[in-house]
Formats: sequence, structure tokens, C-alpha cells
Amino acid sequence: MKVLVINAGSSSLKYQLIDMADETVLAKGNAERIGIDNSVLSHTPAGKEKVEIRTDIKDHVQAVRMVIDALVHPEYGVIKDMSEISAVGHRVVHGGEKFSGSVVIDDDVMEAIRANSELAPLHNPANITGIEACKSVMPNTPMVAVFDTAFHQTMPRESYIYAIPYSAYEKYGIRRYGFHGTSHKYVSLKAAKLMGRPIEELKIVTCHLGNGSSITAVKNGKSVDTSMGFTPLEGLPMGTRCGTIDPAIIMFLMEKENMTYQQINHYLNKESGVLGISGVSSDFRDLEAAAREGNERAKLALDIFAYSIKKYIGAYAAAMGGLDCVVFTAGIGENNPYIRQKACEGLEFLGIKIDEEKNQRMVGRMGREGEISTTDSKVKVLVVPTNEELMIARETVELVG
Amino acid sequence: MKVLVINAGSSSLKYQLIDMADETVLAKGNAERIGIDNSVLSHTPAGKEKVEIRTDIKDHVQAVRMVIDALVHPEYGVIKDMSEISAVGHRVVHGGEKFSGSVVIDDDVMEAIRANSELAPLHNPANITGIEACKSVMPNTPMVAVFDTAFHQTMPRESYIYAIPYSAYEKYGIRRYGFHGTSHKYVSLKAAKLMGRPIEELKIVTCHLGNGSSITAVKNGKSVDTSMGFTPLEGLPMGTRCGTIDPAIIMFLMEKENMTYQQINHYLNKESGVLGISGVSSDFRDLEAAAREGNERAKLALDIFAYSIKKYIGAYAAAMGGLDCVVFTAGIGENNPYIRQKACEGLEFLGIKIDEEKNQRMVGRMGREGEISTTDSKVKVLVVPTNEELMIARETVELVG
Repeated sequence: MKVLVINAGSSSLKYQLIDMADETVLAKGNAERIGIDNSVLSHTPAGKEKVEIRTDIKDHVQAVRMVIDALVHPEYGVIKDMSEISAVGHRVVHGGEKFSGSVVIDDDVMEAIRANSELAPLHNPANITGIEACKSVMPNTPMVAVFDTAFHQTMPRESYIYAIPYSAYEKYGIRRYGFHGTSHKYVSLKAAKLMGRPIEELKIVTCHLGNGSSITAVKNGKSVDTSMGFTPLEGLPMGTRCGTIDPAIIMFLMEKENMTYQQINHYLNKESGVLGISGVSSDFRDLEAAAREGNERAKLALDIFAYSIKKYIGAYAAAMGGLDCVVFTAGIGENNPYIRQKACEGLEFLGIKIDEEKNQRMVGRMGREGEISTTDSKVKVLVVPTNEELMIARETVELVG
Repeated sequence: MKVLVINAGSSSLKYQLIDMADETVLAKGNAERIGIDNSVLSHTPAGKEKVEIRTDIKDHVQAVRMVIDALVHPEYGVIKDMSEISAVGHRVVHGGEKFSGSVVIDDDVMEAIRANSELAPLHNPANITGIEACKSVMPNTPMVAVFDTAFHQTMPRESYIYAIPYSAYEKYGIRRYGFHGTSHKYVSLKAAKLMGRPIEELKIVTCHLGNGSSITAVKNGKSVDTSMGFTPLEGLPMGTRCGTIDPAIIMFLMEKENMTYQQINHYLNKESGVLGISGVSSDFRDLEAAAREGNERAKLALDIFAYSIKKYIGAYAAAMGGLDCVVFTAGIGENNPYIRQKACEGLEFLGIKIDEEKNQRMVGRMGREGEISTTDSKVKVLVVPTNEELMIARETVELVG
């Protein structure tokens, strides 16, 4: 059974075709600048050179057609016919309170995804466009929606209700939703497998550290708390996002700088985070290079990031009543031994002992998982490359297989 | 040596006269509604009935004169002459980055307190008024300023720098300052004494839970992190304050409800917190009563508050690399066994074991300290009544004694 995984943005469409017999990627690619100028489809068949097809891509329907054409192409295609695609799994950002798991897409589901657009105005409309494009090109292929928020729907009320007037929850659905759910679910399952223990008896803190970063407390296989909240702005400092701050800073700055809410929104989402602290870059590789050259604020940005992770590990161990495993994943989590080491430093009292050599060795090994704690560390510390596409494909198979 | 401790608000002036020979309170009181109608001075000499003096109090100078008159009054006074007051200790809310300890007040200090008014526009000007009134009535008595923020000035940079553009720190001093410092210092010192161990070797989490609430990580006697931030709005949910929330909620509500920054400020400071969640009250006794009668949201408010405390205990244990002691203080911390129990529930893995009987017994015993952990609990859990006035008097003696 072959599953096409789609992640549609407002002007892009990423895809992977996965053969679920052995969970291998047959081809993957990205249609970029859809509806803009200079659009391009990059297509990479497994084990072959990347192909770039440059032509005007006027909308997502055309993008999907081009993806199918590439997948069945005699030269760089990987299947003979579109009918080989048994199902399509779509990444959808916001499932709101409606979806606590993946679902086969029908009219009701489409309506619910649309209703959640208010909560994810940048993402859900794009995801909808992607789904509609696929439906128009592959009307008879079953489609599944896999939500970024669904895994976190198991959180108890004390984790998701904010201490603001309850009417904000009732009227607008303002609550903690959490994001990166597909990733947190995937790596926590993988961690349990690597530990050879049933996930139902494990307390895991999963650290998804990438361009956006979030940390989740996974107790007995369920998300019980997570650092991103109503939106992906809360929690850890990120590349350009502020994470958690004193809310009063916003009102203070609006008054002093005469800023509108749109301006402060931009300030906190695009000019803050490690970029804001360092003044150097939002990219951790740049920060490390600058820190090595003696840039104090670049080092400060790294240390603030690591310190925030450390506090979440402690907070979520407390939330779960213990800790068996810490997982690092995504770009920074998989490739940055300095952050991993700093985040775990001093946590020996929790039973965390990092093997510095193993930690250093686990660099740039995208796609390789492994343990970075010592063999006698009570708490296992693992690096697990995330694979949201595979998780989406698995959930798709589960529903339509 | 007798020290007068002054806590001046914009229309009030609280005082205690403390005999430092045995640290007993000779008299205490409060001048209320200064500059408004129906002003009154309540004065309570130790061991005697409260006296209420009702007369127009037009300003803080008159209030200080009335306080002195009451203190030397032949009937309800406690000293013969104003000259018996060796020094005055003033509570000042914001010391900014300038003051990492208490100081004898001179012109430079006054100027610095004035300069910090921008950071505490409601409090510092009132504190200044109180100091000036005392100086005019007692021109030859040394005065000391004790800052709410000073104890937290030992925090490392990764605790106090926010992940927003660094220019906000440079231009406006936007950083974590922390508050309740005098209380956190007092109870951590007291805890070390009760444990019979030098504070220099202890890792203590102090939970000041009152009308405003904050939690501090006190490592080796120094504050290394604290939950209140740039202002007292951050951190735990409080009576009517939201504590930490997703910053994006602010922009979302401003857009949807067409709110100004003044309106959202009021919403987050006055209508949020446990009042906002419950819709019942900001008073924890009301919430407990309502919860007992089956009010789900009142119970939710209590549980959210306790859960936040629990996460801070975990986070700060991680920040300090271990934990020896948890201290509960202030109105809720001293008198609410439900919150203490819920906050510590499940923290056995950290070495915390609450003795439920001791915890229940420690109710309403304002002024009595005691251990509520089991005798074999690795981490000591203590209830320590706070005494900011005594701490202010002690610091005053240290500087002018």
C-alpha cells in the first residue's frame, strides 16, 4: 500500500510517497511559489538525482497534477499509475477541540477544519486548499486529515485552561492546544520501542527543537502538558519567537513605542527569540559560530534556550510524577550537542547522566537515533529523528487500510 | 534599638514599631484614605485594644505626624518620645538594577528610586511620598530603603533576559526583576535555621502565595530565578492576575474585542486569575467553599493554581540541580492545606513526602512555623509565616546599627 503525504502551505505543497510495506520513501518533493512568479517543483525519487521542473504553477490543483505527473513519469517517476496511490494523508495544523485523532475526510470534516481556521488563520486555509486540490485530481482516493493538535487533546483541564476570564474559552476557544503533536507522538512511540518497554508505563519528556520548538510531557503514551499554547508563540524561546514572557511587557511596549497590536505581534513573532537576544541570527549554527568567536549575546541566546528546556524537563517531570526518558528531536534536538548537554547539565538528581562522548558523536547524523545517556543513567536520554510524514502515513493506513 | 517600619501606598501608610532587642512589635497600624474622605488611623499597641482615630488626613506628612503622636500617646502610646525611634526602614517596591541590597537613604538614593518610578508607576511614587513625609517629620532620624526587587538581583542573565529584542532591555530596562524579595529572603533564612543547616549549602524553593503570588529558587542563599518578572503580572495565576499566558492571546483579544492596551491591561490584572477561571471570587476561602458545594470551576481554579506551583517546584529544582526544602508562606501558603497538598502530590520522586496529618493541622496558625513533611522525607517541606516588616527592620539595623 502506497500513501501520498501532503503538507500544503499557502504557496507551497510538500509531498512524500511512502511504500507502507516497508515504510520507505519512494519519492519526495516540494512545489514552491505556487501562484507567484518563478514557481518550481523539486522532485526527488529515492536513490536518484533531484529533478527541478520550472513552469508557472498557478494554483494548488495544478501543483497536485504536476506531483502526480512526476510520480508516474517514465524517467524519474516511481509508480506506473495514479491508482497505485491507495490513500492521501494530509497534515492539518489545527483540529481544535473537535479532533483528538486523525480522521477520514468527508464534508463534515472539511467544515470543521474550516471552522478552526479562526484559530490558525495562516495554516488551516492553506491545508484546506491542499485537500481540495487533491480531491479534484484524485476524486476516488480516500483522504485522511492528521492534525498537529490532536495528540494534545488528552491534556487535563488544569493543563489547558488559562487563568483569564472563562468566557474567553467559551466564546473564542482560547485554551492551550499545543502543536507538533504528530512529532511528539512519533518520537515518544519510537523512544518506548528503543527502550523495549510499553509506552503505557513510561513518563517521557519529548523536546521538539527546531525552527519552532515545543516540549511535551507524555505520560503513559498520552500528552498531559505541552509548552506551546493557544498558538505556537508560547513556551520556549524560538528562532524569532519570544516564547513565554511577562504579558505586561506587551502593554508596556505598546504604550512606550506607540505600537499597534499588529506591530507588537510582528515584533514578538519575527524579531524576538534567539535572534532578538543575540542580534546575530535565528539559526543556531550561526549562533554557535558567533559564540565561539566570543560574541557574548550569541552565547547568552544559546544559554537562555538551553536553560528554558532544562526548566521544562523539571516542570514536566513534576507534572508526571517522575521521569523515565528525555527525547531530543528536530533540527536542533538532533544536531546540537551543546544545547542537549547544557539542557541536561545539573539534572543528575533526576537520574539524568549524559555520556559526553556519545552526545558529541551524535552530530549531524540526521536520520540516526541513539542513546546519549550513560549506561547507568536511570533516565534514558535519546536522540530520535522525527518523521512526521511517516507518522501521517501510518495514521492514514490505520484509518483506510 | 527601636525601628519604625513604613510601607507607604498612594493613599495609605502602614507601620510597625519594632524593638530590635527582642524583635517584638511594640505597635502597628495603618493610616487609610489619606487625601480622600473618611480617613482613619488604626493603631494597635501590643497587647492592647485597637484605637481608631478618625480625622481628615490631608497628606502623608500629616499621617506620619499622627503615627508619631499615637506612638508617644500617654494612653495608647508605646514610647515616651520620638527620639526613641533610632531609624526608619522603608519598603520600596522597585530598586531596578541599581540596588542589590538595602541602602541608607540619601539624595542619590532618592533620585534612583525616582528614576525607577517608570518601572513601578503605581508603587515607587507612593514609596517616595512616604519617605519624604518621614524625613520632614523626623529630619534627624536615619532612613533605610529595603527593596522588593533587591534579593533577586543575584539572578544570572539566563534567568532575567527575555527572548525579545535586546534593545528593549537596553532602552527600557525590560528584564525579569522579581518581587516579594524581602519575603523570599526572610523565609529562606528562617527555613535554613529551622533545618539547622547553613543556607550556603541549601537549595530551597520558596512559595509566597498570597494576594499576589511568586515562587523563587534560592540556591546557597541567593535568588537564582523567580516567577514574577518585569512586573508582578507574570508567573503563577493569582487572585485576579493571569500570570503566564500565551502572549498571542493578548493580540487575539485586542483584535476580536477591539480592546485598547489599557483595557487588556485591566482585563489581565483585575478580571483574570482564579477569579477569571471560577467566576466566583479571587479569595481562596470562597473558592474552597464553592468547590465543596460542587462548583466545578471553583475547583478547577484551585487545581490550576496548585498545578502551576507544582511545575515551578520541578522547574526550579532543575534550575538549581536539586532540592532540599520547599517553603510555603503568605496568606494561602500558611493557611491552605489543600493547595499545599495538591502542589506536592506526586513529587515523591523528588524526595517530597507530605505528612497529611501535619499538613491539615497547620491551618490558620498564622504566626506559627512548622514542618509538614514526614520525618523521613528527603526534602523538607515547611510552612513559615512571612514577616517582611521584621526583615526590613533587621536590614535597617544592619545598616545604621
